[in-house]
Amino acid sequence: MKSKIKPVEKIRIFSLGGVGEIGKNMYVIELDEDIFVIDAGVMFPEDEMLGIDKVIPDITYLIERQHRIQAIFLTHGHEEHMGAIAYVLKQLPVPVYGTKLTLGLAEALLKEQGVSGAKLNEVHPDAELVFDKAKVTFFRTIHSIPDSVGISLHTSQGAIVYTSDFKFDQTPYGNNRTDLGKMAQIGEEGVLCLLSDSTNAERPGYSGSDTVVAYEIADVIGHAKGRVFVACYASNITRIQQVLYAAHQSGRKVAVIGKTLHKVMDIAVRLGYLHVPDKVTISAHDIDRYGDRELVILTTGGHGEPMSALWRMARQANKQVNIKEGDTVIVAASVMPGYELGFAKTIDALYRAGANVIYRDRQVHVSGHGCQEELKLMLNLMKPKYFIPVHGEYRMQKAHARLAKAVGISEERTFLIDKGEVIEFRGGAARSGGKVPYGNILIDGLGIGDVGNIVLRDRRLLSQDGILIAVVTLNKETKTIAAGPEIISRGFVYMRESETLLEEAEKMVAAIIERCLESYMLEWSSLKANIREALSQFLFEKTKRRPMILPIIMEV
Amino acid sequence: MKSKIKPVEKIRIFSLGGVGEIGKNMYVIELDEDIFVIDAGVMFPEDEMLGIDKVIPDITYLIERQHRIQAIFLTHGHEEHMGAIAYVLKQLPVPVYGTKLTLGLAEALLKEQGVSGAKLNEVHPDAELVFDKAKVTFFRTIHSIPDSVGISLHTSQGAIVYTSDFKFDQTPYGNNRTDLGKMAQIGEEGVLCLLSDSTNAERPGYSGSDTVVAYEIADVIGHAKGRVFVACYASNITRIQQVLYAAHQSGRKVAVIGKTLHKVMDIAVRLGYLHVPDKVTISAHDIDRYGDRELVILTTGGHGEPMSALWRMARQANKQVNIKEGDTVIVAASVMPGYELGFAKTIDALYRAGANVIYRDRQVHVSGHGCQEELKLMLNLMKPKYFIPVHGEYRMQKAHARLAKAVGISEERTFLIDKGEVIEFRGGAARSGGKVPYGNILIDGLGIGDVGNIVLRDRRLLSQDGILIAVVTLNKETKTIAAGPEIISRGFVYMRESETLLEEAEKMVAAIIERCLESYMLEWSSLKANIREALSQFLFEKTKRRPMILPIIMEV
Repeated sequence: MKSKIKPVEKIRIFSLGGVGEIGKNMYVIELDEDIFVIDAGVMFPEDEMLGIDKVIPDITYLIERQHRIQAIFLTHGHEEHMGAIAYVLKQLPVPVYGTKLTLGLAEALLKEQGVSGAKLNEVHPDAELVFDKAKVTFFRTIHSIPDSVGISLHTSQGAIVYTSDFKFDQTPYGNNRTDLGKMAQIGEEGVLCLLSDSTNAERPGYSGSDTVVAYEIADVIGHAKGRVFVACYASNITRIQQVLYAAHQSGRKVAVIGKTLHKVMDIAVRLGYLHVPDKVTISAHDIDRYGDRELVILTTGGHGEPMSALWRMARQANKQVNIKEGDTVIVAASVMPGYELGFAKTIDALYRAGANVIYRDRQVHVSGHGCQEELKLMLNLMKPKYFIPVHGEYRMQKAHARLAKAVGISEERTFLIDKGEVIEFRGGAARSGGKVPYGNILIDGLGIGDVGNIVLRDRRLLSQDGILIAVVTLNKETKTIAAGPEIISRGFVYMRESETLLEEAEKMVAAIIERCLESYMLEWSSLKANIREALSQFLFEKTKRRPMILPIIMEV
Repeated sequence: MKSKIKPVEKIRIFSLGGVGEIGKNMYVIELDEDIFVIDAGVMFPEDEMLGIDKVIPDITYLIERQHRIQAIFLTHGHEEHMGAIAYVLKQLPVPVYGTKLTLGLAEALLKEQGVSGAKLNEVHPDAELVFDKAKVTFFRTIHSIPDSVGISLHTSQGAIVYTSDFKFDQTPYGNNRTDLGKMAQIGEEGVLCLLSDSTNAERPGYSGSDTVVAYEIADVIGHAKGRVFVACYASNITRIQQVLYAAHQSGRKVAVIGKTLHKVMDIAVRLGYLHVPDKVTISAHDIDRYGDRELVILTTGGHGEPMSALWRMARQANKQVNIKEGDTVIVAASVMPGYELGFAKTIDALYRAGANVIYRDRQVHVSGHGCQEELKLMLNLMKPKYFIPVHGEYRMQKAHARLAKAVGISEERTFLIDKGEVIEFRGGAARSGGKVPYGNILIDGLGIGDVGNIVLRDRRLLSQDGILIAVVTLNKETKTIAAGPEIISRGFVYMRESETLLEEAEKMVAAIIERCLESYMLEWSSLKANIREALSQFLFEKTKRRPMILPIIMEV
C-alpha cells in the first residue's frame, strides 16, 4: 500500500474548531504542501453571545492557502460537522467528499444558501482514495445519524485516524454497523496519530443500545391510552425509523410536524435510508379525523432540535396541534450542555398541560457518543503512537486523556491541543509546531462576521441595566440650548415609577451644558464625556445600576 | 394536648413562593383568623430576568392582614428560606421564631440591611409554643446547614407538618441528628396535611452520607502533593468543619478567603456550631510563608456560592491567591439548575490552569436534599391524610406526587398547588379554597419592585439585536427639519462595517419626515410610528435583525 504513495517529510495537524468547545468541528491535516480538511461544522451560540444565530470557524488560514487544499471530507450529516459547508465553499471552491446521505444533506444546505457548482464526490465507505502522499480510507461507525464514517489518511509515517462522532453498539438497529475488523486492521498496520471523540469521556460505562430504545418506544406507543407525541432530533433517522415501525405495529398513524423534519425525511427516503411503511403517515391537517388512540405525532423544532417544538405545543402555541390532558410525550433527546434550563422548563410545561412525560425513567433515547468503555475500546483497537482528544470542552479532552493513560498511552504522547495549535510529525516523531490563526465568525441574521466584540459587549451592557439617552439641541449662534435636554430610557427603570429621578437627571444635564456653553467649551466630545460621567455617577448612587449612557447633541 | 388549644373551624394553606420554582420559599397557614407564616426566602434570578439581582415574594396579601399574623417561623439559615426577612420585617413588624444558628444568621442580614427592633425569638428544637388554636413543635432534620428543623402545627383537625429541606443521613457528621422518634410520634398522632421538600424527587435512591464525605475530603487532603483548594457553600458549616479537621490532621493550615465565608464562620464559632482547632487558620496574607504541602485554601464567592470564587482564581483574577500547576481543587458543590454552563466552564478553567480537579469521581459533596427513598421514608413516618409537595419546580412536585402514590397516598389526596392556590380544610376534609394574590418582586441594585415586565421585555429586546435611535430636530415655525435626522445604534452592527446601511436609513427617515411636514401631518405619535415601521421593515430586509427602534423628535 505504501508503495503507491510518496513519502511525507512533515505532517502538521491542527484544529480550526471542535476543541475546547462543542460543535464547529474542523480539523486540518497537512502532508508537506498538501492540505486536507475534515468537517466544516457550525456551533450554536453560547449564552453570552447575545442575539447570535450561529458561529462558524474563521478559515482565513485556508483561504490564503487555497491552491494547496486537496479535499474537504465530511464525516456525517450533523450541522456541527457540515453546517458551515455553504460558507466554506463560497470562499473555497474545493472538492468535497462524503458518503451518500451526508452529501444528500449537504446538497440541501448548499441549495438553501444559494451555492451552486459545488464539486460533491460521493464515496462508498469501502472506497480508497489515492492522493499524492496519502491513501484515504473510511470505516463505518454507529452514530445518531446513518452513514457516519471515520477517516484514515495512510501516509509513509503511519496512519492518521479521525474517528469523528461514534459509539459502539453491539446490537445496532437496522442496517447501521461498525467496521470493527477494518478498525482493528488499521490499528495493526500502525496508527501514527488518533483524533477521537471526547463528548462523553466523563461518563462511565457504555452509552446504551438503539435496539433497547426501539423496544422501549414500541412499548410506550403500544400501551399508551391517548395520543403519543415523539420529539426527536430531525437528523436522527434511526429514531424516526423506530417510531414509524412502532406506530405501524400498533395500528397508529404518524403525523409529521416540523419543516426540518420533513426535509430530512424526504432526503432519507429518497436515498434509501428510511422506510416508511405503507400509509402510515398522514398530513397534519387530518389529525382531527383520527381518534386519540390512532395517532402518533412526530415532531422537531426550529433547528431540527426537539425541545422548542414541545415548548410551543405545551404552551398551546403551535398552529397545528397542541398538548392536551391524557397525551403521552416521549422526549427522545439528551440535554445539550447550556440548555438544561430550557429542557427542564419544557418538561414542566408538558406536565402542566396534562401530559404523561417519558424522558428519563425509561430508555427512550441513547446518546450517539460513546462513553468511557467505548472510548477505551477505540484506543485499544487503534493503538496509536500519539493521541489527540478532540470534540469537546477542555475538561472532556482532559478526561479522555486520562482514559488514554489508563490503556497505556502516556501523557507525553497525548496532546491536549487548543484551536490553532499545531502538532508536527517528522520521521514518525511528534513535537509542537507553533500556532496558526483561528477564530469565531458570528452569524446574526444575514450578517456574517459584522457582529464583533464591541457589538456583543454593548448587547451585554444593554441586557443588564438598559440604556439612558440624553438628547439636546444647541443653537450654534446664540450658544444656548434650543431644545431639551430630554432623557429617554429603555430597560432601566419603569418611567412612571421614577419620574423624579429622570427629572433630576435632566436638570443635571442642563446645568452641565450651560456651564460648558458659558465657558465656551464647545468641544462636543468632552461635553459628552462630562454628561456621561456625571449621569453615570448620579444614577449609580441613586439606584446602584449602570445603564449605558448615550448623550446625543444636535446643532441648529 | 388538644385540650389546651381551641378548636379550629377552617384551615387554609397556600404558598406565596417555593412551588413551581426553586427558592423564595414562603408558606402561609391560616387557622380561622390567625395567620402563621413559614420562611421568607429569596430566589436567585433565572436567565431571562436580565440584570436582576434577586427576587422576593410579593407579600401584599400579608400586609393587608398584618394584625392577624401571629408569627413568622424560619426553618433554617439558607437565603432561599430566610433571605427576604429584612424586606418582610420592614413591612411586617411581627415576631420571628427560629433556632439559634438560624436567628444568628437572620440577625446579620437584618443588620446589613439596616433593620432594627426586630422581635427575634430563639426556640429550642424541643420547645413547644402554644398559640390560640395550635400548639407548635419542631423536629430536628439533617440538611446542609446545622440547626435545621421541620415544624408541626398541632390543631384540633390534626397536625399540619412542614418538613422544610431535609435528608435522612443514618450516619450524620458531628452533632447533627434527625428526630426520627419525634417524627414517628407526630405521624402516630395524626397528620392532617404534610408539606414536604421535592427538590430531589426525581433522583432515585439515597442522597449519601456526610460521614463518607468527611472521609473522602480527609483522604484527598492527606494525599495531595501540593496546595489544596476547597470551594464550598458559605453556609455549609458541616463541610467547613470537615475541612478544618482534615487539614489539622494532615498538618496543614487553612486560609479562609471570601467575605461571606468569614461572616458565617464567625457567627457559627460564636454560637458554638463550629470548632476551629488551635492555630489551624491563618490569614490569607500569610499564604506565602507556608509551603504548598502545608496549605488548604477554603473559599466561596460573592453570594456564598463556591463557583464564582474558583472561576476568578482559575483565571488568575483573585487578589489574594490564584490556581497554579499542581494544585488540587475540591469542588464541594452541586450544580444548581440553570447554572450548569457556568459550572462546566469553571471546571474547564481550573484544568487549564493546571489543577487536579476533584468534583464527580469522588464523593466530596452530597446533596442536602433527600432522594426518592428518603422522601418515601418521610411520607411513611408522617402518614398524612393529605399531601402537598412543595420546594421545587412543577416536574419535581409531580415526581413527588408519584412517590406519594407509591406509598399509598392517592392522587385525590395530593394537591399539586401553584403559588397563591389555597387548600381549605373543614372537619378534617380538604377542598380547593380559591386564590390569593401573589407575585415576584424583582430587586435590581437599590430598586425593589421598580423593574417590571416592561423593563425586562426591553432588556430582552436590547440584548438580542441592540437599539437604533433616530433623532431629528424640527423647526415649528418653518415646518422644516432644523437638524438631523441622525441615526445612532448600539449592539446592532459595528458602525464601520455598515455605514452605507445607516446612511440609507437616514435618508429614509428624512423622506418620511418631509412627506409628513408637507402634508401638515405633524402629529408626533403617528410620525414616530411611521418612522419606526419603515425602519423596522427596511432593517429586517437588509439584515434579518430586529433592533429596538427609538425615534426622538425635538422642536425648536
